[in-house]
Amino acid sequence: MDYRGRLRAVRKGCRRFGVDACLLTTPSNIFYLTGIRDVEGYLLVSRRAAVLYLSGLYLNQALAAQRADAPVSITRYEEGSFCRQMRSLGRVGFIGADISWDSASRWKKRCRCVGIPDFLRELRSVKDAGEQRVLVRAHAAAVRVLRQARRLLSPGMTERELAGEIQRLISRVPGAKEAFPTIVASGPHAAFPHHTAGSRRIREEEPVIVDLGVAIAGYASDLTRTFFAGKTPARYARMRAALMEVHRECRLMAAPGMRARELHRRAVKILARHRLDAFFVHGLGHGVGIDVHELPSISASSADILRKGMVFTIEPGVYLPGVGGMRHEEMVFL
Amino acid sequence: MDYRGRLRAVRKGCRRFGVDACLLTTPSNIFYLTGIRDVEGYLLVSRRAAVLYLSGLYLNQALAAQRADAPVSITRYEEGSFCRQMRSLGRVGFIGADISWDSASRWKKRCRCVGIPDFLRELRSVKDAGEQRVLVRAHAAAVRVLRQARRLLSPGMTERELAGEIQRLISRVPGAKEAFPTIVASGPHAAFPHHTAGSRRIREEEPVIVDLGVAIAGYASDLTRTFFAGKTPARYARMRAALMEVHRECRLMAAPGMRARELHRRAVKILARHRLDAFFVHGLGHGVGIDVHELPSISASSADILRKGMVFTIEPGVYLPGVGGMRHEEMVFL
Repeated sequence: MDYRGRLRAVRKGCRRFGVDACLLTTPSNIFYLTGIRDVEGYLLVSRRAAVLYLSGLYLNQALAAQRADAPVSITRYEEGSFCRQMRSLGRVGFIGADISWDSASRWKKRCRCVGIPDFLRELRSVKDAGEQRVLVRAHAAAVRVLRQARRLLSPGMTERELAGEIQRLISRVPGAKEAFPTIVASGPHAAFPHHTAGSRRIREEEPVIVDLGVAIAGYASDLTRTFFAGKTPARYARMRAALMEVHRECRLMAAPGMRARELHRRAVKILARHRLDAFFVHGLGHGVGIDVHELPSISASSADILRKGMVFTIEPGVYLPGVGGMRHEEMVFL
Repeated sequence: MDYRGRLRAVRKGCRRFGVDACLLTTPSNIFYLTGIRDVEGYLLVSRRAAVLYLSGLYLNQALAAQRADAPVSITRYEEGSFCRQMRSLGRVGFIGADISWDSASRWKKRCRCVGIPDFLRELRSVKDAGEQRVLVRAHAAAVRVLRQARRLLSPGMTERELAGEIQRLISRVPGAKEAFPTIVASGPHAAFPHHTAGSRRIREEEPVIVDLGVAIAGYASDLTRTFFAGKTPARYARMRAALMEVHRECRLMAAPGMRARELHRRAVKILARHRLDAFFVHGLGHGVGIDVHELPSISASSADILRKGMVFTIEPGVYLPGVGGMRHEEMVFL
């Protein structure tokens, strides 16, 4: 990955927002800029240097993961010296979406700092060749796990038991881990888009929505299938046909330069033709990368423009309160 | 659980901080006040009413989970009407630690709102009888899973494989799920307090730190053991003796009314006697409940006072960079 290029982009962002340095605070942004995964701390990028401040909890781990191609130094966080460093740099921008009101208020009292927009979100939404390769691997692993999960499904097992089997399948993929807690939503639970696995027993001929993600080398995949123990009732077969039509048409339509919301609109139109649009209660999809939810947002109110290199989901779903539901989620590499 | 009492406490908080209503935004606080788990939304508690605003993503799920003993109404979030409601209530307090700088800045432009301290953290740190019962169950489940995990450990398996087996064990506990991604840190990885499970193969006579949590009915447990495949080297047996001495002494010492930081100091003193204090790089413990990390904080800089009903961890650890480490974590019910 081109860490030098990414740090240059942060410095360009500093100039754009009229600050002398930028403070990055999320593990995802720290990983994006340093290659060091899963640490909480402060990354301070100034014109001349990039310094990662970490507590003793993460210091050894980060030193062991430090990359030769990322020009970032690592030091122990100590409040006094960190504050002095902040003040000495001049105006420091923090990403206002990534820091709490309380923390920002405290910093503002002690240093010259100012909230700036999350310009890294846009940068991160376009994946470079290295990121795409990792995402393709994470996607392939999720497809394999879903195929194995389908074979494990049998009536009588609980949602959590199936989720547990899936966790074990993921742990056996070399270098992989769960990108988020696997969703297993059966029968009436399938009407809840964000249900997590519960203790309900799965019955025959009812939908079982399995939504899982496999993370490899810090990059997530995100896929959903709706399975049936036993045969698929006719009503759900018709629903599946409508969802697959959305996938076919939206994949054909998706192209760099178009507005993301056009894809969502097309999906709603197709579902309306099948009289299912009233039961589609969320956006059509979202970018996926270091975080499971990134830009672009593929929804009715999105202002995002699709660009080459973006990786996002298309996930039409139909939710029938008290009855059940169905979702099918695929990743698109643009 | 006494939802009415908790809502009364929020209204008391409003009076204390001079606001007419309070906006709660975290899934944990929403669960604490309504009994509805795992939903993202806005809970607006005014003198007369408590209203939970949710997007279509969570609406059906929340309506199905609504409790008769929690006087909270649920409605669909719509920005315009939500803002009008906020304005009509007068001064609305939001918890400044729970809301981003950007969101707070946006609200402040449209409504009369103001950041207030996180008074719910203190309230939540003292567990009532119902919460304690659930936490005892979550704790007992974690103890059982740890015992089973020890039997599964064998040299040659990877950290992630062991973590996957543990996930499956947790999924088989009725009503349980992982409270956080299980940590399996073997050999030199045991020197990293926050290592997550990786693809390293476990060898004989090296430490394997297993840190896991089981959540039951929305409440988490958090326990750590250090296992050895094969026999325990003498150096680690001595380390274990020191950590167990910390546990014995701190448990005897812990009592309502004392400062939490006194416990941490005692632990450091004991480890110093064993010449291990330089390798203890984190706080001695933390409260556990709906979140895995709650008040009280048991650390050198903590200002918290221990109170009856608090549930917290004691988790002394020793981390030898490049070599390994050991941690033993237990929950204390005060």
